[in-house]
Amino acid sequence: MYELLRAYLNKITSSTVSDEEFQFFEAAYSEKKVKKKQFLLHEGSICRYMAFIAKGAMRQYTIDDKGVEHIARFGIEEWWMSDRESFTSLTPSRYNIEAIEDCDLLVATNEKLILLREQSPLFVKMGVILDEKSYIASQKRLDVTISYTAEEKVIYMMENHPQFMQRFPQSMLASYLGLTPETLSRVRKQLLQK
Amino acid sequence: MYELLRAYLNKITSSTVSDEEFQFFEAAYSEKKVKKKQFLLHEGSICRYMAFIAKGAMRQYTIDDKGVEHIARFGIEEWWMSDRESFTSLTPSRYNIEAIEDCDLLVATNEKLILLREQSPLFVKMGVILDEKSYIASQKRLDVTISYTAEEKVIYMMENHPQFMQRFPQSMLASYLGLTPETLSRVRKQLLQK
Repeated sequence: MYELLRAYLNKITSSTVSDEEFQFFEAAYSEKKVKKKQFLLHEGSICRYMAFIAKGAMRQYTIDDKGVEHIARFGIEEWWMSDRESFTSLTPSRYNIEAIEDCDLLVATNEKLILLREQSPLFVKMGVILDEKSYIASQKRLDVTISYTAEEKVIYMMENHPQFMQRFPQSMLASYLGLTPETLSRVRKQLLQK
Repeated sequence: MYELLRAYLNKITSSTVSDEEFQFFEAAYSEKKVKKKQFLLHEGSICRYMAFIAKGAMRQYTIDDKGVEHIARFGIEEWWMSDRESFTSLTPSRYNIEAIEDCDLLVATNEKLILLREQSPLFVKMGVILDEKSYIASQKRLDVTISYTAEEKVIYMMENHPQFMQRFPQSMLASYLGLTPETLSRVRKQLLQK
């Protein structure tokens, strides 16, 4: 599993991590398996882990007062899952993170990452790149949510996250896009007929 | 105006920037005034500037095919305005950034910031802190947008951004919160009566 993280690290930093430096990563990250329908994080708990998905699919969501679920993020291979605010500030999270498929993860605690930051310049570099990417992705997700029509939302997902369409159930895709399952189904059919 | 940026830099990095290091900031940032109703960025253009608001208020928004405006962000003193994706990748922006009050800004181009990153460790530190804060804020904004009721949205804004309520018109506050102006007005009245 560590080889996947290593390849990812090299790719995202456009560098080649040395054996010596990668030993710090191996010390910081532990392997963790989360079975389908099990949780990495429950609402009300402190988010202990920053998780790298080596294999599998997850979703991050809140539940409102009426019991309705709102999906903030999906994650598949090479994505990171955590509630960043809870993870860094050690406050209770509003989120649940659930495995939608059996997942193989590499997880690290905040303390381990503080140490890794001191040990590895490449980890710092990865963090800077990932933070910028995450911020841009989060702004884009907001833009899609508040200003795209139903059809534009579906086209955006088909073009940018085709894997999501295959790996997450219709009801979750609809929640992620802020559509009813009926609207999602109708729009997909219309697009296929074009 | 530079003294405001200097105080902000010291505050956010919990450090004290030396005269020598701050000279690099003075070389990177230029003063720019944007009058009320003028634009820092127009949709379709490349976002040239990362702007620090020394004085004033701005909004960042998109316009959909039907001509409806969708406000992604507000900014007031000590906030940064730019379309990060367009700014770093030099691609045309989907956003408009407009002054809602007369604004005094300190602006830098991407080339200037690349140089500043090499010159100033404190700029790098500020960037890491700001990227994390921006990402968390963006996630929070998404969470509020997709999962809060109208009443929860208004309470959240009153508690976390009370200045927004005083400085932006009702119609813009409603757009920012994803409510109709009528709903915003009704909810505010109900909350005042409680």
